[in-house]
Amino acid sequence: MSRQISISLLCLFTSLVASQTPPSRPLTGFDDSAGADQLAREQRFDSSLNRADLQQWLQRLSARPHHLGSPAGKEVAEFVAAQFKSWGYDTAIETFYPLFPTPKLRLVELTEPRHFVAKLEEPAISEDRTSSVRQDQLPIYNAFSRDGNVTAPLVYVNYGLPADYKVLAERGIDVKGKIVIARYGHSWRGIKPKVAAEHGAIGCLIYSDPYDDGYYVGDPYPKGGWRPADGAQRGSVMDMPIYPGDPLTPFIGATKDAKRISREEAATITKIPVLPISYADATPLLQALGGPVAPESFRGALPFTYHLGAGPAVVHLQVEFNWNLTPAYDVIARLPGGELGNEWVIRGNHHDGWVFGASDPLSALVAMMEEARGVAALAKTGWKPLRSIVYTVWDGEEPMLLGSTEWGEQHAAELSEHAVAYINSDVNGRGFVSLGGSQTLEHFANEAARDVTDPDRKVSVQDRYRAALIAFGTPEDKQSARDKRDFAITPIGSGSDFTVFLDHLGIATLDISFTGQNASEGTYHSIYDSYDHYTKFEDPDFQYSMALVQLGGRLTMRLADAGTLPIRFNGFVRAVSGYVDELMKLTDTMRAETADRNQSIGDHSLALAADPLVPFIATPESEVPYLDFAPLQNALARLQHSAQAFQEHESRLTGTLPLATRKDLDQIFMHCDRALLRQEGLPRRPWYRNEIYAPGFYTGYTPKTLPGVREAIEERRWQDASTQIPLSAQTLNALADQIDRATAILKNDASQ
Amino acid sequence: MSRQISISLLCLFTSLVASQTPPSRPLTGFDDSAGADQLAREQRFDSSLNRADLQQWLQRLSARPHHLGSPAGKEVAEFVAAQFKSWGYDTAIETFYPLFPTPKLRLVELTEPRHFVAKLEEPAISEDRTSSVRQDQLPIYNAFSRDGNVTAPLVYVNYGLPADYKVLAERGIDVKGKIVIARYGHSWRGIKPKVAAEHGAIGCLIYSDPYDDGYYVGDPYPKGGWRPADGAQRGSVMDMPIYPGDPLTPFIGATKDAKRISREEAATITKIPVLPISYADATPLLQALGGPVAPESFRGALPFTYHLGAGPAVVHLQVEFNWNLTPAYDVIARLPGGELGNEWVIRGNHHDGWVFGASDPLSALVAMMEEARGVAALAKTGWKPLRSIVYTVWDGEEPMLLGSTEWGEQHAAELSEHAVAYINSDVNGRGFVSLGGSQTLEHFANEAARDVTDPDRKVSVQDRYRAALIAFGTPEDKQSARDKRDFAITPIGSGSDFTVFLDHLGIATLDISFTGQNASEGTYHSIYDSYDHYTKFEDPDFQYSMALVQLGGRLTMRLADAGTLPIRFNGFVRAVSGYVDELMKLTDTMRAETADRNQSIGDHSLALAADPLVPFIATPESEVPYLDFAPLQNALARLQHSAQAFQEHESRLTGTLPLATRKDLDQIFMHCDRALLRQEGLPRRPWYRNEIYAPGFYTGYTPKTLPGVREAIEERRWQDASTQIPLSAQTLNALADQIDRATAILKNDASQ
Repeated sequence: MSRQISISLLCLFTSLVASQTPPSRPLTGFDDSAGADQLAREQRFDSSLNRADLQQWLQRLSARPHHLGSPAGKEVAEFVAAQFKSWGYDTAIETFYPLFPTPKLRLVELTEPRHFVAKLEEPAISEDRTSSVRQDQLPIYNAFSRDGNVTAPLVYVNYGLPADYKVLAERGIDVKGKIVIARYGHSWRGIKPKVAAEHGAIGCLIYSDPYDDGYYVGDPYPKGGWRPADGAQRGSVMDMPIYPGDPLTPFIGATKDAKRISREEAATITKIPVLPISYADATPLLQALGGPVAPESFRGALPFTYHLGAGPAVVHLQVEFNWNLTPAYDVIARLPGGELGNEWVIRGNHHDGWVFGASDPLSALVAMMEEARGVAALAKTGWKPLRSIVYTVWDGEEPMLLGSTEWGEQHAAELSEHAVAYINSDVNGRGFVSLGGSQTLEHFANEAARDVTDPDRKVSVQDRYRAALIAFGTPEDKQSARDKRDFAITPIGSGSDFTVFLDHLGIATLDISFTGQNASEGTYHSIYDSYDHYTKFEDPDFQYSMALVQLGGRLTMRLADAGTLPIRFNGFVRAVSGYVDELMKLTDTMRAETADRNQSIGDHSLALAADPLVPFIATPESEVPYLDFAPLQNALARLQHSAQAFQEHESRLTGTLPLATRKDLDQIFMHCDRALLRQEGLPRRPWYRNEIYAPGFYTGYTPKTLPGVREAIEERRWQDASTQIPLSAQTLNALADQIDRATAILKNDASQ
Repeated sequence: MSRQISISLLCLFTSLVASQTPPSRPLTGFDDSAGADQLAREQRFDSSLNRADLQQWLQRLSARPHHLGSPAGKEVAEFVAAQFKSWGYDTAIETFYPLFPTPKLRLVELTEPRHFVAKLEEPAISEDRTSSVRQDQLPIYNAFSRDGNVTAPLVYVNYGLPADYKVLAERGIDVKGKIVIARYGHSWRGIKPKVAAEHGAIGCLIYSDPYDDGYYVGDPYPKGGWRPADGAQRGSVMDMPIYPGDPLTPFIGATKDAKRISREEAATITKIPVLPISYADATPLLQALGGPVAPESFRGALPFTYHLGAGPAVVHLQVEFNWNLTPAYDVIARLPGGELGNEWVIRGNHHDGWVFGASDPLSALVAMMEEARGVAALAKTGWKPLRSIVYTVWDGEEPMLLGSTEWGEQHAAELSEHAVAYINSDVNGRGFVSLGGSQTLEHFANEAARDVTDPDRKVSVQDRYRAALIAFGTPEDKQSARDKRDFAITPIGSGSDFTVFLDHLGIATLDISFTGQNASEGTYHSIYDSYDHYTKFEDPDFQYSMALVQLGGRLTMRLADAGTLPIRFNGFVRAVSGYVDELMKLTDTMRAETADRNQSIGDHSLALAADPLVPFIATPESEVPYLDFAPLQNALARLQHSAQAFQEHESRLTGTLPLATRKDLDQIFMHCDRALLRQEGLPRRPWYRNEIYAPGFYTGYTPKTLPGVREAIEERRWQDASTQIPLSAQTLNALADQIDRATAILKNDASQ
C-alpha cells in the first residue's frame, strides 16, 4: 500500500472509530441491565483470548492428512475432545459407522487420437512444507462415485448444468453413451455427474479450469495463492439434494447396528463413474476435441480453442473404491445451562479435512475452540449461562456431512424438543463477514456483527459489510446499506454441517465466516490447503480468526443468556416476500421468453440467422401458463399482519417476564422455525422438510427458497407448481399461528 | 451440417422463396413503368455476371504485396484502370503525393528482469502459398508513428481507453515516463498511443490478445481462420480524428506542388513511438510485469495471471522510418449520364493492401469491378443512365485514406456541386448484409437489400438481416424486425474511404458489405490476409462477393436512373430523435452515477470495501449540471414536422414531373446532407464539418453522433456542451429548410 493511502485511511479510521456507538447498546432478548452485564462479559471474553492458540492448533492439526478414517483423523478428534474436557466441558466422542469409499484404482487415459495418461497427482512444492507428507494422503478423487470402467468419445459440457445440455442439443450434440468433461463451478460438483447421467452419459470428468480456479483469477501457488496446474479439487459427488449423510441409513443414525439398505438401493451414490482432474491433466483431453467451436459461455482460460466434441478424443475412465463402513468420531461437549438448561444452543464445526485441511476446516475449527475456551473460562469465574451450550465437532463432513447428519438423525427427537439454534462455521479468512441462514435470526446476527471490529479497517464488521454492499452490491443492496438497515441474512442450502439442522429438523441456523479477500479457493480440497498457504495467503496474522472467535462467542453466549430468545420476524417476512415476488416474476419472465423464442423458431428467424456451417436445431418449448399464486400471497399477507402485531407488543419482551412466561415464549420461538417444516418433505426428496430453504435439486449447495414451488416452475412442472403453492402457503400460515401465539401471550401479560 | 438440419432448412427455404414478393415492387424515385424497366435491367445485369472474374482477379491482384508505393501497387492500379478502360469507361489515373512512412528500424526488447528480443516477424505457413513471398513485404509496423528510441518500465493499460487509465489511477499507477502495452480492440488503434501520450507515456506497444483476436475466438490459422501466435496487425496510428489523409496537406489535395506544412507542424503524427506486436512477442513482456493483478476487465486469454506493472519489466522500443512523399494512384472511371449527367453517383473501393490484402480490400474491389463490368455491358446495349456514374479506386487507404481524402479535398468544389451520393465498399465475406451511412438513404438501401437474395439461406438479404436482429439484437431491434420495418442504417464514423465524402463534404454516403460469418478479422492487416485464407475461411465460392455485386449494382444504377433522387427523411428523423434521446439520458445517467460514486467516496464506503493489500485511490468528480436541451428538442420537433409535411406530398414524386422541377428537387435533395455541415467544423477539429456524424475523438472508427454535443458531455466539458447544443440545432433547422423547400415545390406542382 502506498504511503499516501496509509495516511488517508488512518485519518479515516480514527474518525470512524471515534464516531462509533457508545458501549451501551440494545441487545435483543435482554433487558437493559442484563444487556449491560452481557456486554461487560464480552469484554472479559475478548481479553481472555489468545491468538497464539490459533496458530499452534492450526499448525498441529494440519501436520498430517486427517480425513475420515485416517489415523490422524482419530487423533484430531481425541485431541479436540481432550481440550474441551480440560476446559471443563462434559465431553464425549460419539461414533457412527457410515459408508465411506476410498480409491483402489483410478485411471484416466486418452486413447484416441493419441495416447495420454492423466497424472492424477499433486506434486510436492518446496515452499509448502506439508505437501511432501505423502503418508495417508487421500489421492485426487470424488467420494461416492460408483465403481466403473468405461471407454467412449469425450464431450465438453461446460459447467454441466441442465442449461448447458440445451446448448449442446441446439448444436446437435448428444452425450448418450459418451464420457463428459465438465468444469468445476456454477453448480455444486455432485450436480455434474447427476445431470450427465440423466442425459445418458456413461462417465464424468470434472476439472478445474484456470478461468474459474487458477491463473486467470490470480497468481498460482506458490507465487500467489491460486490453484496451480496440477492442483485438483477432491470432493463428494453424493446426490446430496436427495439426502446427505450415510447413503445406507437415510433418516436414521448410522450406529453400529442400525438397519442399513444395500449400496444398490442407495439413491445417493452416482449412476456413473466420476473423477476430478487438474487443468494440467485436462489440457490434452480438451485439446483433442473436435466438433463445433464452443460458444463463448463455454470457453475457459486454457490457451487453445475450446471445442465441444463429441470425439475424436476417446477417453478410458476406470475407478474402483474400497466401500468400507468407517468410524466417524463426533466430539460433543456440553456446558449445562441454568433455569433454561433444557434449551440447547448448538455450535459446530467439522474436524476432518480432505488432506491437511488447514483452511477447510481447521481455520474455523481453531477459532471455535478458542471461543469454547473463552466461554469455559467465563464459566470458571462463576457465570452460568441460562441455556445449555453444546459444542459439536464433526467428523466426515467432507464426504457429505456424515458426522453431523447421523448425529442429527440419531437425536432428532431430542433436538426437536431442545435445540434453540445451530451456529455453524467451516472455513475462515481475510475479508467481509458472511452470515447465512435463518432470517428469524437476522436482527440478532446484525447486532453481533455491529459489536465486532474489523481487524483491517477498524470499523464494525457490520459497517464493513455494508461498505462492501455499497461498493459491489445491487442498487437495492446499496440503498439498504446506506439506510443502515439490518443487512440481509442470505439463505443457505447445503454444503456444510448445518444441513440436517436447518433442512431436516427446522432448527434456526446461522453459518458464519469471514471471506472474500483471501485465496482460500485456490487450494480448496487439494494437498496445498496447508498451514503454509493459510499463513501466507489467507489470514497471516490470524486476525480474522480472532474476529470469528469474537463473533461466534457473542452469538453463542447471547443466545444462551438472553432473557427470551432473540427470534424476530421482520427480516424473515421481508425475505419471503421477496421470494414470492421472485417466483411471480420468474413465471412472467419465462412466459415472455418462451413466447419470444417460440415465435423466433416459428418464423424461422433463428434458423435463418444461424451460421450455415454450424449445426443448429431449435426446439419450441411448452408455453408457460398463468399460475394461481393467491394462496401464497394471502398467506404472506397474513404473515405480514402477524409480524406487525407481534412487533407492536415486542417491547414487553425487554421487561422482566416471569420465568414460566419466558419458557412458554421460548417454546413458541423455537417452534417458529419448526413450523417451516412439512413432515412429508419436498417432492422427490422427503428427507428435506423445510418449505422455505433447500439445496437446489440442480444447483446443490446454492439454496432454492420456497423450493417446492420454485423448482417446479424452473423445471416447467406446472401441475406440481400449482400443487406446491398451497402447501408452501400452509407453512407460512403455520408460522403465523406461532407468531400469533407469542403475541397473545405478550398481550395477555400486558393486560395483567 | 447434419443431414437432419439440411432437410429441415431446405423445406424452410422452399416455403420462404415461394412466399416472396412478386417481381413488381415499388422503387423509390421511380414511377411504376420506369421501376419495372429498372427491375428488368437488373435481371439482365444479374445474368451478365461472371463469378470466375472474381476468382481470377482476386488471385491475380493478391499475388504480391501491393501497398502504397510498392511496384505491385502501381501495377494493380494500372491493371484496374486498363480493365475499366476496356469496358468503355472514361478512365484516368490521378496521382497524389502524400507523406508515407515505411520502417527503417524496428526494435522491441525486454531488458529487465531478463533479456528477450521480439521477433516482429510473421513466418511463412506451408498451407498459405503467398506467405512465403517475402519480396516487398511491409514488415509489422504502425504507420505515422513518430521516430523514437525509448527505454522505460512497462505498464499494461488494457485497451488503452481513457476509462482504463482511470482504473490504473485508482490503483495508484501512473504511466508518466513509462512505456505502455495496450491490446487491440474496443477503440481504433490510433486512439491508444494518443491517449497514452496524453497521460505522459513515452512509448506504446499494441498487441493482439488471443481473447479478442486469436485462439479464444476460434482455431488459429491454418487450422482455422483466426490469428496465429505470430500474426500481428499492421495499421495506421495517424491521429485521424483530427483529420485524415496526408498529414502535410490538410484541407487541400496533395498534388505534386501543393503547399505543405512541415512534419513537425503535422498534428496527426503520433507524439510517441508505437509498434504493433504479436501475442507470441507480447507474452514474455506481459509475463514479466509485477504490480497489482489486473482487474477482470483487463484480463485476456494468455495462460498466466495478468499484472498491471509498472515494471519490473523494462522495455526498449526503437523505431525509425523513411519519411517519403509517395505517389498514390487513384483510378477514376466515368460513365457519363444523360439529362441529369451533371449529377454524379460515385462508387468507390481502395486497391492498396497492407500486404497481399486478399480480403481487405480485394474481396470487395473485385466485386466492384464485376459490378462496373456489368453496368458497362448494359451501357453497350444502348442504355444510358440519367445521371453520371463515377467508379473510384483508391490508393493509400491503409495508411489512412490518403488517396480518397486527397481527391476529395482537391475536387471539393465540384463534388459539392455535383455529387449525389458516395457508395463505398472495402471488405466482404460470408454473413449478413451491412449497410452503414446516411439515414437519408435508409429506405432506398432497404429496397436494394430487399431485392438481393442471400446465397446461403435463399431469402432476401434484408430478411436475413432481420432474422439476425431477431436472433441477436436488442428488444427494440427485434420488434422493429418483426414489424418488417426498414432496418436502421447504422451511423458510421471513419475507417474507410467514405470519410471525406460524409464528414468533410456532406455527401450522402453508404458503406456496404457482407460480414459476420467469416474469419476475416483473424488475418486482418497481416501477411495471412491471402487468397488461400479467403477461399478457405471467408467466402470460398465467392457467393457473397456475387451478392455484393448485385447489391452495389442495384444501389448505383438506381441512384443513377431514378426520376428524382431517392433521398427520404423518416429514417433520418427517427435516428436523430434517438440520438437526442441518448444525449439526455446520458447526462442523467452520468449525473446519477457521479452523485452515487461521490457519495460512496465521501462516506468512505469504497475505501472500506477495498482490499487492504491493493492500493486504492478514489477521486470525486465534478457533479453533472442540468443542460438546456430545448434548442435541440425544438429543432427536432420542427424537423419532424417538416418530414411529416414532405411525406404527405411525397406521392407527387412518383408522377412524371417536368425535367426542370426534377432538377430543382435533386438540387434540394443533394443539399439535404450538405445542410448537415457546419463550415467552422467541430470543436478541436475543423476538418470534420458534419454535425451529425464523426469518428470519435477517443474511439476512432466508431462514430459519435451529434459529436459536438456528445463528446462535450462524455468528456465533462459542460460549457462546451451548452455551446454546441444550439449549433447542432441550427444544423437540424437547416435540413428542415431544405425539406420545406422540396415540399413547397411539390405543393406548387400539385396546385398547377
